[in-house]
Formats: sequence, C-alpha cells, structure tokens
Amino acid sequence: MNTIDTLFVNAIVLTMDAKFHIYEPGAVAVGGSKIIAVGDDHKMREKYAESAGTVFDCQGKVLMPGLVNVHTHVPMTLLRGLADDLRLDVWLMGYMMPVEREFVSPEFVKLGTQLACAEMIRSGVTSFADMYYFESDIAEATAAAGMRAVLGESVLKFPSPDARSYEEGLANAEAMIRQWKGHELIVPAVAPHAPYTCTDEILNECAQLAAKYDVPLHTHLSETAQEVENMRKDKGMPVIPYVKKQDLFMAKVIAAHCVHIDDGEIHTLKHHKAGVAHNPSSNMKLSSGAAPVHRMLEIGVDVGIGTDGTGSNNDLDMFDEIRLASFLSKLTTMDPTSLPARTALLMGTRMGAKVIGLDKITGSIETGKAADMILVELDTLHNMPRFAHNQDNIYAQLIYAAKSSDVTDVMINGAFVMRDHQLLTLDETRIKAEAQQVARQIDDFLQKRENSVLSKLIAVGGAMEEESFEVQAKVAISDPTPVLEALEKPAVEIVYKRHYHEYDTYFAFEDRTQGYLRYREDHFIDDDGQVSQVRSRLTLIGPEGEEELPEKVLLSRSRFLAPATQSFRFYREYFKPAFETEVEKDRRRFLIRYHGTEFYVNIDQLIVPALGYFLEVKSRTWSRRDAEAKSMMIAELLSYLNTIPEEASKGEYVKMAVDHHDRQKK
Amino acid sequence: MNTIDTLFVNAIVLTMDAKFHIYEPGAVAVGGSKIIAVGDDHKMREKYAESAGTVFDCQGKVLMPGLVNVHTHVPMTLLRGLADDLRLDVWLMGYMMPVEREFVSPEFVKLGTQLACAEMIRSGVTSFADMYYFESDIAEATAAAGMRAVLGESVLKFPSPDARSYEEGLANAEAMIRQWKGHELIVPAVAPHAPYTCTDEILNECAQLAAKYDVPLHTHLSETAQEVENMRKDKGMPVIPYVKKQDLFMAKVIAAHCVHIDDGEIHTLKHHKAGVAHNPSSNMKLSSGAAPVHRMLEIGVDVGIGTDGTGSNNDLDMFDEIRLASFLSKLTTMDPTSLPARTALLMGTRMGAKVIGLDKITGSIETGKAADMILVELDTLHNMPRFAHNQDNIYAQLIYAAKSSDVTDVMINGAFVMRDHQLLTLDETRIKAEAQQVARQIDDFLQKRENSVLSKLIAVGGAMEEESFEVQAKVAISDPTPVLEALEKPAVEIVYKRHYHEYDTYFAFEDRTQGYLRYREDHFIDDDGQVSQVRSRLTLIGPEGEEELPEKVLLSRSRFLAPATQSFRFYREYFKPAFETEVEKDRRRFLIRYHGTEFYVNIDQLIVPALGYFLEVKSRTWSRRDAEAKSMMIAELLSYLNTIPEEASKGEYVKMAVDHHDRQKK
Repeated sequence: MNTIDTLFVNAIVLTMDAKFHIYEPGAVAVGGSKIIAVGDDHKMREKYAESAGTVFDCQGKVLMPGLVNVHTHVPMTLLRGLADDLRLDVWLMGYMMPVEREFVSPEFVKLGTQLACAEMIRSGVTSFADMYYFESDIAEATAAAGMRAVLGESVLKFPSPDARSYEEGLANAEAMIRQWKGHELIVPAVAPHAPYTCTDEILNECAQLAAKYDVPLHTHLSETAQEVENMRKDKGMPVIPYVKKQDLFMAKVIAAHCVHIDDGEIHTLKHHKAGVAHNPSSNMKLSSGAAPVHRMLEIGVDVGIGTDGTGSNNDLDMFDEIRLASFLSKLTTMDPTSLPARTALLMGTRMGAKVIGLDKITGSIETGKAADMILVELDTLHNMPRFAHNQDNIYAQLIYAAKSSDVTDVMINGAFVMRDHQLLTLDETRIKAEAQQVARQIDDFLQKRENSVLSKLIAVGGAMEEESFEVQAKVAISDPTPVLEALEKPAVEIVYKRHYHEYDTYFAFEDRTQGYLRYREDHFIDDDGQVSQVRSRLTLIGPEGEEELPEKVLLSRSRFLAPATQSFRFYREYFKPAFETEVEKDRRRFLIRYHGTEFYVNIDQLIVPALGYFLEVKSRTWSRRDAEAKSMMIAELLSYLNTIPEEASKGEYVKMAVDHHDRQKK
Repeated sequence: MNTIDTLFVNAIVLTMDAKFHIYEPGAVAVGGSKIIAVGDDHKMREKYAESAGTVFDCQGKVLMPGLVNVHTHVPMTLLRGLADDLRLDVWLMGYMMPVEREFVSPEFVKLGTQLACAEMIRSGVTSFADMYYFESDIAEATAAAGMRAVLGESVLKFPSPDARSYEEGLANAEAMIRQWKGHELIVPAVAPHAPYTCTDEILNECAQLAAKYDVPLHTHLSETAQEVENMRKDKGMPVIPYVKKQDLFMAKVIAAHCVHIDDGEIHTLKHHKAGVAHNPSSNMKLSSGAAPVHRMLEIGVDVGIGTDGTGSNNDLDMFDEIRLASFLSKLTTMDPTSLPARTALLMGTRMGAKVIGLDKITGSIETGKAADMILVELDTLHNMPRFAHNQDNIYAQLIYAAKSSDVTDVMINGAFVMRDHQLLTLDETRIKAEAQQVARQIDDFLQKRENSVLSKLIAVGGAMEEESFEVQAKVAISDPTPVLEALEKPAVEIVYKRHYHEYDTYFAFEDRTQGYLRYREDHFIDDDGQVSQVRSRLTLIGPEGEEELPEKVLLSRSRFLAPATQSFRFYREYFKPAFETEVEKDRRRFLIRYHGTEFYVNIDQLIVPALGYFLEVKSRTWSRRDAEAKSMMIAELLSYLNTIPEEASKGEYVKMAVDHHDRQKK
C-alpha cells in the first residue's frame, strides 16, 4: 500500500470525474505527487487516518481539481493595463510591438512569469498553456513556482524579441523542447503564432517538429473575421482548411480562439483531435466576436477556457473567465440553459486538461492522477446563502457566485504552493516592486516616444500594414531600352506591369532617427496614357537600412504603410515636419518571375529632381537565409537586365533629392 | 468656514466630475455629511490639516465616489443560487414565484436587505435603486445599514407577497412614500413591475402617484424580445410608445433593461428625461440580449449600471458589472474603443446617480455633494503593475483589473460603514447564519415539492401562461334556446362565437391538494359542422376555488396552462395519475360585451357523462374590486339570459362527472 502523506478530510469533494462524483463530506488521500484515494469522509478516515503523515481538516470547504488556463501569455502580465480601449492595430503596433521589441528579455519574461504564476495560484489555477518568447526562461520560472504548464516557444515570420528570423525561432523551439522534455511539471511545445504571421513553410515545419518530439503545437486560429476574410482572399479557403493543407494536424493542436469557424471546420478539428482554447474576455474586449462553443461541444470537440494575456483581459482570473464563458454562450444562443455551470466548470478543469494534452495527469480528483487540487471557501458573504436541494447548486455557486479570492489553499503535484492565502513558492513583495520598476521604465519610454512620428502615424493612420523586410538594389541607367528588351527575353516571366506617375513629398524631422514620412500620390496611367486612378498613401521609412547583404543588396526594414485618408494639408499640420523634399517620377513597374522567384522591377525616370533613369529590383523576404539567397539572385538579375551590379547603390531617392538640392545651393 | 471632521490625504483622488479631474496626490475635506473641498494634497493640507478633526492617510489608494447600483432587488439576495441554468418560465414559475409566495415576509426582506447591503458595501457601492415587496421594511434595513437608496414598492396585476390586488399594492406604495419622503438616505418610489405584469390603468395610476409626490417611478421595460413581440401583437406598438401612451413619463422614470428598443424609442426616453438601468450580467445569463447602450449614449440618454437581483447574476458586484458593460458593448458594436473604461466608470458613478435622480447629492467627489466615497487599493497582485503614461490608465486599471475585494473603506453621507475591510453597521456573522437557516427551509420546501404536479408540469410544459383570476358562474339549463335568443337581443354585443367538441381527461392524484390536471383536445367545428382544427392543451386546476363572491359567483385562481406538445400517453406516464375521469361535451362559446364589459358565455352540452345543458359565464379579473363588480354583473347577466341566478353552482364539470360515476357504482 502507498504511503499517505496528507489525508484531506471534512471537505465537499467535487471530483469532476466522468460521473461527476461529489462526496459531502468527503476525503482525499495524497501520497507523494499523486492522489491515492478519494471517497466518503468516514470510510477514508477509517482506512487512512492512522497511517497518514498529516490529516488536513478542510473545514467544510470545497476540495476540487485546480483550474486549467488553456491559453495565455504569462510574461505579458508585466504589460497589464499598458494601453486599453484602442483599435487593434493601434494597440498592437502603437504599443505592444514597440514595447515588446524594446523590453522583452530573459529577465523580463522571468519576472512576468512570476507575477502571472502568483496571480494564477491565488485564483486556483494549477496548470496553464503559454505561448511567448524566451519560453525556456519561462519554463525555469514556472517550475520554480511549482506550477504545471505546457509552454510553447513562438515561431513567426517577423523578427521577434528572441529570434531575428523564423529559422532562429524554430531552432529555439527545438532546443527548448530538448531541454524540457520529460520534466515533471513542464511540457514543452512549439507555437507557430498564427497563420497570418507565419508562412506555409513555417506552419508545416512547426508541425513536423511537434510530431518529431511528440509535443503539442499551440497556435492562434480564426480569431477575427478579418483574418478569415484575408485567408479566403489570399488562399481561397477559410483558416482551418488552410492549416490542414499545411499538415498542421500531424501535431496535437491547441487551437486558441476559433471565433470564426463553421460546422465543417469544427468537424475537421474533431476529426484531428484538436482542442480549442476559448477566451471569452479577450474575444469581447478586442471585439473579436463570440466563438460557437455550444456547437463545438455538440459536435464533440474538447473546449477549454483561457484568459489570454492580460493585455486583453486584463487579469488571469479563471473564475471570471469560466463564468463569462457561460454568460456569453447564453447570450449568443439566446438559450439560458446553454453552457450550464457544471459544463462550464468541466471546461475549466478536466476538459481543459484534455485540450492541452494533460488529461492523463490532471483536471480531476481521481486515483492515480497528480494531486493538483484547490480549496474554495463557500461561506464568504457573496456566496451566502448556499442551496442544496439539487446537486447542481454547488456548481452554480462556484461558477456564478464564488470569486477567485475564495481560494484558500492550492496544491500542485502533491506540494502546497499556497496555504491559507499565503504563497509559498513566490515572493510577492519583491515581484510587485520589480514589476513596478519595469512599468516605470516603460512609462518613460512611451512618454519620450510621444513625439514619435510612428506613434503619431499609427494614431491617425487607419489599418496599417505590418513592418516588413525587403531586399533591394538600385542602379543608375542611361537608357531604359536595354532593360525593357531584357525583360522580353524568355528567362523572365512578366506577371503584370503597371505605369504610374508618382508625386512624393518626404517629411523629415529635427530628430533624424525618426526617418522619413512619405506622402505619395500614385497616378495610374492606362494604355492610352490617361490617368485612370489616383491613390494616396503614407509610408514611414526607417532611418537607415540596417545591413548590406552580399552584392550591394540592401536589407531594409521598418516600413509602415497607411492609406492617406486625410488631405495633404492635414498631414503637414499634424506631423509638423522640419524639412520637406519633393520627388516626382515616372515609374514602369513590373512584377516578374525569374528562376521561380518573384521580383518587382521598377524602371524610374526622375523628373523632380531631373536625375535621369534608375532600375530598381526588390523582393519581400521573411528569413535571413532567404534574403541572402535573393540578394545573390538580384545581382544575377541586374546583369541579366544589362546593367552592372557593381554600380548598384543603396541610396533612397529622397537622399538623392536632398543631396541634389544641397549641391545646387552651394 | 465649515468645520472639517475628516481630511483625507495622500490619495489618488478620482473626482468623476464634469472635467474628470484627478488629483495625484490629492485630498478631500469632509464636514458632517458633506464634501467641503477637493484638491491637491499639498494645498489642502496647508488649508485644512490644522483644523481638521482627523487627518486620514489614504496611503496612496484611489479615493473615488461610491458606486451606484441602479437596478436590483435586494431581498432576493436570500435566493442567490436557488435555481440556475433554467428556461425563464421554469425558473420564474417553477422556483422564484412559488418560493416568494411561500417565504417573502417583512422579516425575509429585512434579512435579505442586510445581506445585500453587506455585500454591496464590501464591493464599494454606496447607493442603489431597488424594487421589491414590503419596501418599507427594506427602507428600514437600508437606513440602519447606513446606505443610500431609491426604494420602489412593487405594483402588479397579480397577487404578490404583500398585496392581494393591485389596489393594495398601490396603497402600500403611497403609504411607503408618505412614510419615507424627506429621509436623508432613503428616496421612496413606486415600481409598477412591467407592462406585461400591469394593466393600462396600473401604469397610469403609478405615474400619477409618482408625479403627485415627485418621486421616481422604477420599472422593467423591453427586457426580452418576447415582451416586445407580445406588445406589438396586443397593442400594435412596441413597449416605449405603449407606456408613453399610458402617460408613464409624467413621472421621472428609471427604465430597467431596455434591451430591445430602437432609435425612435431611445429618442422618446431622451425627450422625457428617463434614465436607463443597464444590467449586462442579467441580460446575458437570462439570454435576454444586449442593450444598445452605445446608441443610448450617442443619442444622449443617461445610462447607469445595475446588478439586477442575485437570482440572475448571481452577485451584487458592481466591479464585475461595470467591466462586463464595457466588454459587452465592445462585442456588440465590434468596436474595441466602444464604452472605454472612463465612460464605463462614469456610468457606474455620476451618470448612474443621475439615472436614479440622485445626481445633485452623489455620484462624484465635488464640493457640496454628500461624502459618499470609497478607497480602492491598487497595489494588490492582480493590479500589478500600474502604468501612468496616460491619464486613462487609472480608469482602465479600475475597470479591467481591479476587483471588488480591493475596496478597503467606504463612507456614506459622511459616516464610515466599512473601515479596513470591516463592516461597521452590519453583523456579518449573524446575517450569514440567518441566511443559511432560510436557505435550509427553502431547500426543505423544494424537496417536498418534488412530487408536485405543478412543478412537473412546468418542467415539461413549454411556455406557460401565468396564473390568473377568473370570476365564473354555472347554471344547469333544460334547453339552450332561451339563452341563444337572449344573446340576439340588443343589450348584448357578440364579439365572436366558436363551436367546439371537447374531449377532456382529468388526472387526479392521491394527494388531493394537487388539484386536477386536465388534458383537453379542442376540436374546432366549422359552419358546415366539420372539424377544422384540433388543439391539445394541459391545464392545472387548483384544488378549490378559494372564495365565493356575492351572487354565487366563484373567484378561482391557480390555473396554469401549457400547450400539450407531447402525446396523451406521454403525459399519462409522466404524471402517473391515481385517478382518471373523462368528460366529453359540445361547447358553443361566445365572447360578448355587456354594458361595456367583456364576458365569455359557454353553452355546454355534456355528452360524457350525459348530464344535459349548462350555461357558464366567465370573466378574467385583476383586482378584487373589479371581481366584485363583475360578480354583480354576472348575476344580472344570468337573469338577462333567462336563467335563475339563485340556481348557479360552483361545481366544476370534473366533479359532476366523478359524482355521477360514484352514483352509478352504488
């Protein structure tokens, strides 16, 4: 017989097992990290009280499985309340991304994880699934806090705080998986951020990695209607079929959000045993919508409940979250019997554990499972009175009336991490003080940035394109004819060609690190030489391309793009530039395919200032390896187009115009 | 200069005044029940510290106006968690109404009020607007707890726990208004429950009463889509125009819910300066829908936030409620900037005070207003860190992260009711113990009722009609011809006539107090004598008509009606009757108007058992006075229809059939 370390007695034991057994009064015997037995108080005492190391009197409280938070970003707890009530683009690109770029480091994520673990333990969470950067550091802090977690290292096509390219991200994920695989509390995972921030290749490689090591794959799917619309436009199908096509489901998928999916997609998720992480607060606060949870449950998909990060919540309170899941389902189905308390709590415990692949280990109080349990006090004022004419009363009490502050004790894997509201593994005072220090630094950073052109652009700019990388090369040419002739040759396939007349005004500022803000009017010229359409756009161009690739090809970043919906005069007044520079040019633009790769070729005639003809070759890129390969191809292409690659320069037109102007003044 | 009793210093003072002044650090001077001054900490100390009775160090907490809960039913706090996740009809008629009928008394409402006040004070509420029964007892308990409230005595067309008729309810309301008008903390009000539970007359008389005493009128309007649909069907217009037609807006109206109203109705509310009580938790949990709050605010209607009763919430936590109001608006508008934190908090404070007519007194920290203030601690773990780069950060922190448990101190009307989480005016231990006793009694009552036919009917019955009162008289006649002839005479106007063949089966039970459950098939007979339609219904008939009115007219109640959507065999198995009785009859049914009043006249030929012809005269009634008047008219009508009123009997057909059967057996 197993040794009993602790015998919990005098509790209302909610097992959340398959038959929803309740023992009132009940008892639970724990030995080492495991639950040894569960049953009636009287019988359990008879059998175990004498040999138990400790007999723990639960004083009539509810003893239940710890809650499972199936989707969050724990380090972002340090960004709680950073910016709220904003449009998604303004929030993301104006606040979250710049602050993350500046501040996220191993120390940052450790502190954020500690803050989050403290808050989650306080509110009865014993397991969570995370997705962020420096996930190995997160794992260290989580294990030290004594919490159980599935931790996914993020991979995405943009540079991130811990990876300059997706290959680096993928390598980080693999290293993290190797390091943590087999840990008693931590399950490592890979987390391709979302289809719209990944490529076909990234999704597929992440799935292969997850399958290779048999770890979960955690990702965001179908969070917004916009995402689905873009996917339909770009790929001709909604999100779930698209990721299926990339073989994502060769992995065990934790699909966060799934707000905008239809019955067919739900069946696909079921078929592939994917679990869904439902985040009601986040979906409401960010206006994403309401996930069809009732249909998922009807069709048989496992759905857990997540808080998402505090950026969009703003807390990690699973009591709030479970309740809101029930309320939201009742609202959207217009059926008050929808998602009743017991089902909601099941999603917050055993079903949640299944969603993140921990159902063999946690999520219910059953013999053989880990002792992940919490005590909840139900005689606090806001819980009074308690009815008992019906077995479901206790679930309703927990879901609709109880608060996270009613959690008094938390045990994870057989070890107490909170006793009588006191945290045992985390130093709350230190964590709070350090968190405040970080917030002060971020406040300073944001206040200084108040004069930033980028933040002003974002504040006014409408839907923004994300930042991107481009490889590009430019060569002065005396005559465009040889280039045009080369383009007609068979090695080049012309996908399309356009003719524009472009009027650009570049704003520059006293602070040169702000870069240039370009206001451009594109006049489309049709085959008859007539202007058929005019489009105005704003582009913020970073101060300098950061590095030169081989063959004088430039790798540039930090371009932000916005439709210019206001007048030129408005922008001049709004941005108050210190300098203005005009550039006017005629542009023949070709999208070509060369050895299977797409490039933009611009044949430009500069009119203001009158600097003659230039050939530009550009291509978007998402990885360093790809950038290097493309820079080699660009050099080759320049030769092919009858120019001399060695003459390529990295100058932007605005600089040429400024230099020209300076020369004239002298 | 005023005497300063308490000078609050070292606080973040959120005034919530018209300019949203924040003093950080700030101070507030209180003298007697009033705020004497508000301002910068330093200047206020210089001016008042020396002369102040007490200098209260707020330790950097937020000092803000107390929250205003604009719609609740405080005594129902004793019914928290009584029954959840049920269809509205099952919840209301299966649980709430029977329990209220059995348990609600002056003692019940006082205890419930104490429990609610304790919970509200703990969560930072200083004022609320209530609607229930025995409101004068509620006022007593509220004043003793030191809370501010607008308390509306309910008036409705059904008998209620404190009024057998609407006239009694109205008289109670007037008495309550006279008793409490002018009290420092209590504003009395009248509360016609809702259009669908009132009559034209009740609404109008309530409005007159409110206008006469210049007190608010608190009512439920347009809570569900069904309500609006029924109103359109019955009155040819939606709810707001209907109540306008009854001159409801001659009073200052507090309109709870307003979930299903259009722009035109919103303009009507604005024009009449009605305030709206928005109850997001209740509207979600009961699947009522989402009120168009953003439109109300755009058009300029004042909207406050309410918890509703704990039956549909299940708490009185305004922190939860304000946050949910913001989330819900962001979801329904699909705009994350909708209902930002500051606006949400405004609705929970100053604007809420305006909705319930207390804006001159409370809702903001301004010189001259009552000292209704709370202290909120923002350095709790779940509030960490706190950003300060933007003035709106503090509102976001309070709305999206802070919890009711962060409220440490509460002052109402210059008097502390909570200090450092300790209630000063209420004995929490006693209240909790007594509340548990009441819950045990209700548990017992409900467990006993498990065998009740009514509850079983409700559980299975689909949409139910509410209970009703009827006055009725029945006379045996030898020949229907004289009655039919009298119906042709000019004093009677026939609104319509119908011809049925009715097959009834009455179920009776060992427990005779259960009454009879009738399963009826109505065969409609058309002019050619053919059956044109068949309808099946279940009716539960109370055990006995409770009292006889003058002229042998019976006042009966407790009839519950449900469409019989299942087979007869199902009902027989489901209800397991001890006895069955068959009645078959031919019925000619007339709706007539006699001296301006509508009556139903049935000329029945009993076929099984073959007992001959009967004349029945019936009318619905909503008040005792009306019932008495109608019973006189029925006697007159019986004479007019050539029968002898003195021969009228109160026997139901089922009893005649049973008697007949018994006689045959002998």
